[in-house]
Amino acid sequence: MREERDTIAAIATALGEGGIGIVRISGPEALRIADSILDRPVSEAAGYTVHYRHVKEQSLILDEVLVTVFRAPHSFTAEDSVEINCHGGLYLLQAVLNAVLSAGARMAEPGEFSKRAFLNGRMDLSQAEAVMDLIQAKNSHALRAAVNQLDGRLSEKIHLLRTGILDELAWIEAALDDPENYDLTGYPHKLEERIHGFIQSLEELLRTADNGKLRREGIPTVILGLPNAGKSSLMNLLTREESAIVTEIAGTTRDILTEQVRLGELTLVLSDTAGIRESEDRIEQIGVARAKQAAAAAALILLVLDASKPLCEEERALLSYAAAQHTIVLLNKADLSQQISKEEIQNCGAATVLSFSARRGDGLEALERAVTALFFGGEFDNQSEELAINARHKEALTEAKESLHNVEASIAAGMPEDFFSIDLAAAYRALGTVTGDSVEDDVVNRIFEKFCTGK
Amino acid sequence: MREERDTIAAIATALGEGGIGIVRISGPEALRIADSILDRPVSEAAGYTVHYRHVKEQSLILDEVLVTVFRAPHSFTAEDSVEINCHGGLYLLQAVLNAVLSAGARMAEPGEFSKRAFLNGRMDLSQAEAVMDLIQAKNSHALRAAVNQLDGRLSEKIHLLRTGILDELAWIEAALDDPENYDLTGYPHKLEERIHGFIQSLEELLRTADNGKLRREGIPTVILGLPNAGKSSLMNLLTREESAIVTEIAGTTRDILTEQVRLGELTLVLSDTAGIRESEDRIEQIGVARAKQAAAAAALILLVLDASKPLCEEERALLSYAAAQHTIVLLNKADLSQQISKEEIQNCGAATVLSFSARRGDGLEALERAVTALFFGGEFDNQSEELAINARHKEALTEAKESLHNVEASIAAGMPEDFFSIDLAAAYRALGTVTGDSVEDDVVNRIFEKFCTGK
Repeated sequence: MREERDTIAAIATALGEGGIGIVRISGPEALRIADSILDRPVSEAAGYTVHYRHVKEQSLILDEVLVTVFRAPHSFTAEDSVEINCHGGLYLLQAVLNAVLSAGARMAEPGEFSKRAFLNGRMDLSQAEAVMDLIQAKNSHALRAAVNQLDGRLSEKIHLLRTGILDELAWIEAALDDPENYDLTGYPHKLEERIHGFIQSLEELLRTADNGKLRREGIPTVILGLPNAGKSSLMNLLTREESAIVTEIAGTTRDILTEQVRLGELTLVLSDTAGIRESEDRIEQIGVARAKQAAAAAALILLVLDASKPLCEEERALLSYAAAQHTIVLLNKADLSQQISKEEIQNCGAATVLSFSARRGDGLEALERAVTALFFGGEFDNQSEELAINARHKEALTEAKESLHNVEASIAAGMPEDFFSIDLAAAYRALGTVTGDSVEDDVVNRIFEKFCTGK
Repeated sequence: MREERDTIAAIATALGEGGIGIVRISGPEALRIADSILDRPVSEAAGYTVHYRHVKEQSLILDEVLVTVFRAPHSFTAEDSVEINCHGGLYLLQAVLNAVLSAGARMAEPGEFSKRAFLNGRMDLSQAEAVMDLIQAKNSHALRAAVNQLDGRLSEKIHLLRTGILDELAWIEAALDDPENYDLTGYPHKLEERIHGFIQSLEELLRTADNGKLRREGIPTVILGLPNAGKSSLMNLLTREESAIVTEIAGTTRDILTEQVRLGELTLVLSDTAGIRESEDRIEQIGVARAKQAAAAAALILLVLDASKPLCEEERALLSYAAAQHTIVLLNKADLSQQISKEEIQNCGAATVLSFSARRGDGLEALERAVTALFFGGEFDNQSEELAINARHKEALTEAKESLHNVEASIAAGMPEDFFSIDLAAAYRALGTVTGDSVEDDVVNRIFEKFCTGK
């Protein structure tokens, strides 16, 4: 049942000077309101047609415009909608919007158009969220992930899982209701197998979430090494590309800088790079404690060793510390005679050791392959599978997973079948929050509040 | 004859995050290029129709979009055009634009769409300029003026004048060619009358230009007066409205501030108001020389006198200085017993004297009427007559006027008729530059360079 809603309007294009700006109207009165501010009506026009008109306020012409008519349900919001394509001045757009508001529309809240698209069933919640991800996308991974999600790929996977869980729920209910026709013998074992499958799917999705985030936003990385090992040469090599961006993290300590650098198809977010750039001795200045702190917060450590000198005690200490993390050891100065062998380092517990020459620029491709192997299972997943899973989704998937683990525990403990139902239902509900099938109004409101106005 | 041009593309909406962003393509290949990046073609579609599509780059989907098709000559540029209505992210829009450029379009130069509209005869030069004025309009006067100009009101007036001049030129040519059938007796006198009419029209237009500028951008105003006359009270009264904006003029001295305040339908641009706000004694600090300097640069002086005290020598000096300017004398503190009469001030040479109480807020409406009388002949011109005449137009109109004055001089000096022709032709050409009928390519280029990209 579709709720009757009022008619909303907003400037839908970015605020600023542009050639074109759009005022968007949506709701049952959209066409009537448009008619009342135009020199000639558009309300008789078919959907998906464009009309040259003048916007008038009293007898004065405000602008010559192109008006696009959309008829419910064939519009972004699934409501009657009008887009007024104006000349793109800010004052002008506000004047046109004011005329629309005076004619009876209400100023749209941030995200309200997308919210209506969701409430009217035009898209599910994860798709609506993808719209915002798309707008905010800053690189090709983010863009692709958002498009996939808008396309319903996440929703599909969620629906599949929910259907599977619902089948089990239904079967248990039926068996408990009608024990004569349903035999629960051996069912816990079968259920266990199915649960195992569900959990695997969830873990795959959760991995996508983490991988996706690292791919879209970059891998938090720290460069460690003794003075003169070649940290600043590595930095210079990585930041040589014009795409390097230095950003200062607000709050906390003012001296923590991050820099996004591109490593082939990957993005690394390097911490504390300013210090490294300033001085090779930075690691001494900040002390081992600080270095460890930075390394602990990173997802990847690049440990640079000067391979032209024998391994010293301090380096062994760094190695033993780093071995517990995702670390790649770079045997730098490969162009000089080598005093350290890969075997020696691997014996110290480091899994990935690469010969490198920051000075000559050798080894970047091997580094990219090694990072890809460490984080993305050796190669990028099929790009069409990328999804822009956000913190909210991750929370829901994790909750569902925990509920399924509870079912496993109940099975292992030999609990009666109706115990399974409780946790299966919880998993079902948790997954429903991703697509918005089972989600509270206030959650919906909170999600759309983060959108920009006009979307 | 229409020149064959290549196909151009640009992001047409303001750059930033918005719900909707548009990539615009124009030129003979617009439809083919659109087809090549869309999942399904639009090239068979009728003009003024909208189509739901996906933008693809190789096999990857970039966005789901609405594509509007325009067919020559029914488009902004009078060429085949396509507008791709995307989700409004900047990275996304750039990705879509890149796909369009890869498919064979060329990145549009600033103003190139409008330039094509002009070159293809869709609008004349003054109308194309109005597009930009419209985008940059900051208040309702500017908006109205730009809309009127876009609507062709200036062009109409220019065409009328040019036709009139051309008639005379043609008559003179004919008479000189065929003296048997044309009698030039008495013609100089008749021409003189017509020239007089042309000049009057030109002066009216030029007045519009100056008035329009004052109305659109505000009247440069200075408040003068002795300490404690009530300058800061007047300031506070005027800036009480939320619309007051303080702007600092770059360059020159850093301490010159201007503040836009609204006085009913008028905008005043108050100079050096920060000083007045800081201290009533500012006028003493800056000295009479500085005060005069500020007043000389202003179009309007508001001279505030404390009417509860007798007129002093310094005030007489201010009055005699100000009498030479557009000055309104405010007899402030009208709520106290009055020691100065209007007559006394008028005897000092001031034309406009108003009783005022900055403290009580009395007299603002009378002030608005007085300013309107001083600058706009007692009332706003018919608003439908407002035009956004710019410096270029003003120069052309002034040049035309001078040429017509030369014709008058030639007539007065009893010169032969072919002398008239030279100056009439010059006036005709000068007016033609306004609408672009007679304008050099480099001037056209210079005009459109100032436009924003995508327009």
